[in-house]
Order: sequence, then C-alpha cells, then structure tokens
Amino acid sequence: MNNKGKLFVISGPSGAGKSTVITRLLKQLNNVYFSISATTREPRRGERDGIDYHFITREQFEQMIKNDELLEHAEYVGNYYGTPERPVDEKLAAGYDVILDIETEGASQVMARRPDAIGIFLFPGSFSVLEERLRLRSTDSEDKILRRLEKARQECKKAEMYDYIIINDRFETACDEAIAIMTAEKCKTAERLHYLKED
Amino acid sequence: MNNKGKLFVISGPSGAGKSTVITRLLKQLNNVYFSISATTREPRRGERDGIDYHFITREQFEQMIKNDELLEHAEYVGNYYGTPERPVDEKLAAGYDVILDIETEGASQVMARRPDAIGIFLFPGSFSVLEERLRLRSTDSEDKILRRLEKARQECKKAEMYDYIIINDRFETACDEAIAIMTAEKCKTAERLHYLKED
Repeated sequence: MNNKGKLFVISGPSGAGKSTVITRLLKQLNNVYFSISATTREPRRGERDGIDYHFITREQFEQMIKNDELLEHAEYVGNYYGTPERPVDEKLAAGYDVILDIETEGASQVMARRPDAIGIFLFPGSFSVLEERLRLRSTDSEDKILRRLEKARQECKKAEMYDYIIINDRFETACDEAIAIMTAEKCKTAERLHYLKED
Repeated sequence: MNNKGKLFVISGPSGAGKSTVITRLLKQLNNVYFSISATTREPRRGERDGIDYHFITREQFEQMIKNDELLEHAEYVGNYYGTPERPVDEKLAAGYDVILDIETEGASQVMARRPDAIGIFLFPGSFSVLEERLRLRSTDSEDKILRRLEKARQECKKAEMYDYIIINDRFETACDEAIAIMTAEKCKTAERLHYLKED
C-alpha cells in the first residue's frame, strides 16, 4: 500500500509501567517517534518545552481546538492537555511509526478520528499487583492511593476498545510483546499486498 | 479467555522458503506443534510414517472424509493429501500453537472451517526473485519451471485471504516477523481480557 508509518496508542493505569516500556521501544526500534503533548499548565522544575511538553497559552490551545488541529484533548484541573495532529501526520508520512501515550478518554477520541490507529493497553497483571506498585512508589496518602486505584479500575473497563493487551508482569516480556505487535502490524496483508504485484 | 493455542496456516509458492522458516520457528519457539499431513501416496525413500506424513490407505482416507475428520483435503495426481483435525485440536487444547503448512486451496478450506485460524502468506519479494530461486534449486526442464512459476502466480492471487504477508527477502527478518506475528496474536484483546477481571 504505502511506506507510511503506523499510529500506536498506548494506554494503561498509572503503575502499569507505560513510560518504562515506551522508553525501551524508542531505544530499541528505529523510525519510531514519540508524540509530545501540548499543555497550558506551567512547566514543572526540570521540564523542557518541546521535549516533555509543548507549553502553550490558553489562547493558543483554544485556537487549536477551534481549528480542529488536535487528535484529542481534555481539560484536567483547569489546564488543557492535547495531541497536535500535524507533527503526528508529518512523521507518519515520513515513514515513522508514531506512539501516543494517552489516557483512555483521549485514546477513544483518537481511535474515533483515526480508525487505522492501533490501541495497546498495558496492565500490570492484577489489581493487587497494581495496588502494591502504587503503594511502593508513592508517598501519597491512603486516600489518594485509593482514588488512583479506583481510576485504574475505571480505565480497565475501557480496555476492550484496544486491539492488544500487554500484561506487564515481566518487563522484558512486555517489551518483547510491544515490539512484536508493532512488527506484526506492519506485516498485515493490506500493508504488503503491493509486493505481490507483477514486476 | 483461555490458555488454548492458536492455529496458524502458512502458505506460499514453492521457492518462498516456507520450510526453512517453519524449521526455525519450531526450533526457536516453545509450545509449537507442526501438523503432519495424511496421504495415500507411497512413502519416498527416507520418508518416515508419522514424521513426514501419516501414510494411510485410500480406504482409510475416504473413511476420514466420510466422517468429516479432516480440516482440509485435496486429491493430487491420483493421491489424497489432507490434515486430520483431531491431533490439531488435541494440541490446541493442550496450549500448543499449531502450524499447518498447506497450499492456498487447503488453506481456504481451513479458514472457512476455522475462522479463528490465522493465515500467513510467505513471498520471496518479487516474481523475478522467485523465478531465480526456482531455477537455482531445480534441475527441472524449462517447461516445468514455467509451470511452477505460473502456479506461484495463481497462488499469489489468493494472498488477500491471509491475515499477514511475510516478504522473505532476508531470512532472519522473515523469521523475526513470523515470530512477531505469533507473539502479537496472543496479545489480542480477546485473549487477554480475563486478566483485567477483579481478583
């Protein structure tokens, strides 16, 4: 069909290990671009514009909404977060696979807008493992941990809309599976049929 | 959903390198079973019953057809060839992935009977490469080579019914892709959703 890249949407509850897996993918695979979100919130210490986020003004963000320039967006505690569509399309056209790390709500916006997007949901293996991980890595109050866990439960209810589920109970296996999915998707018949045309 | 294995149907023109790729898969992956065909033809020198083929009588084969015990079958220059269904089902139930190496005609029978089967079509990259390979490895007459090439063309017309196409222009890449496909298929959401049930 073409040499265009593919769009992968990766979601999963906080504690599922998304960013570690994605970091590995970016290290191990060529031609993969990790999409950078835009936000109206203030940069935190150490965050760099254009690397961690595109930090833009509320006016700029609302203009992008108005121009339909976002693949998905949401407002969260008074700040906008979203994925600008143009850089994604430019990378796809240049043959890069593009990875979006977004929440289930944004993911459902992307998948509605781009039916060709491939959804991958990362899960730590069980809710008790998830709880353990959230407790281990957090100094948060019990109340906050329970709210996170409840949020994770809500997100997991939307796992059905994804194409693949990766169980991150062993990091190496999870990475291998993510790479296998990205590789296999490029072997889909529609992507390869043009090779069988007569010379 | 379950821990059952998956059924993979691998086809491709003679010269595409199917058996080399499958041999590698069997070496590299655990829990993979390569289905052995039944045939009514005489064993050739070196062929072992139950390893290369199940050598059975015409009466036995026709009884299996009558009992609907074959996943697919065909008659070819006066001999029957087919895939007994029971050993395949036993291995799938025991958690093995099962690989069938069959021609496009048999593959379409299997895929009609087992919609859960995953089809992989192997192609050498181009028809000129295919021709070259057929000429290199064969001491056959020009006529025979041209007939094989024509048959390959016919088979390639059916590539659309497969889920994946692997271009075997580099052996290692082709094997990696086959393994990626088998791995990714086991990550499909329907296979994994049960992990997300509450403990």
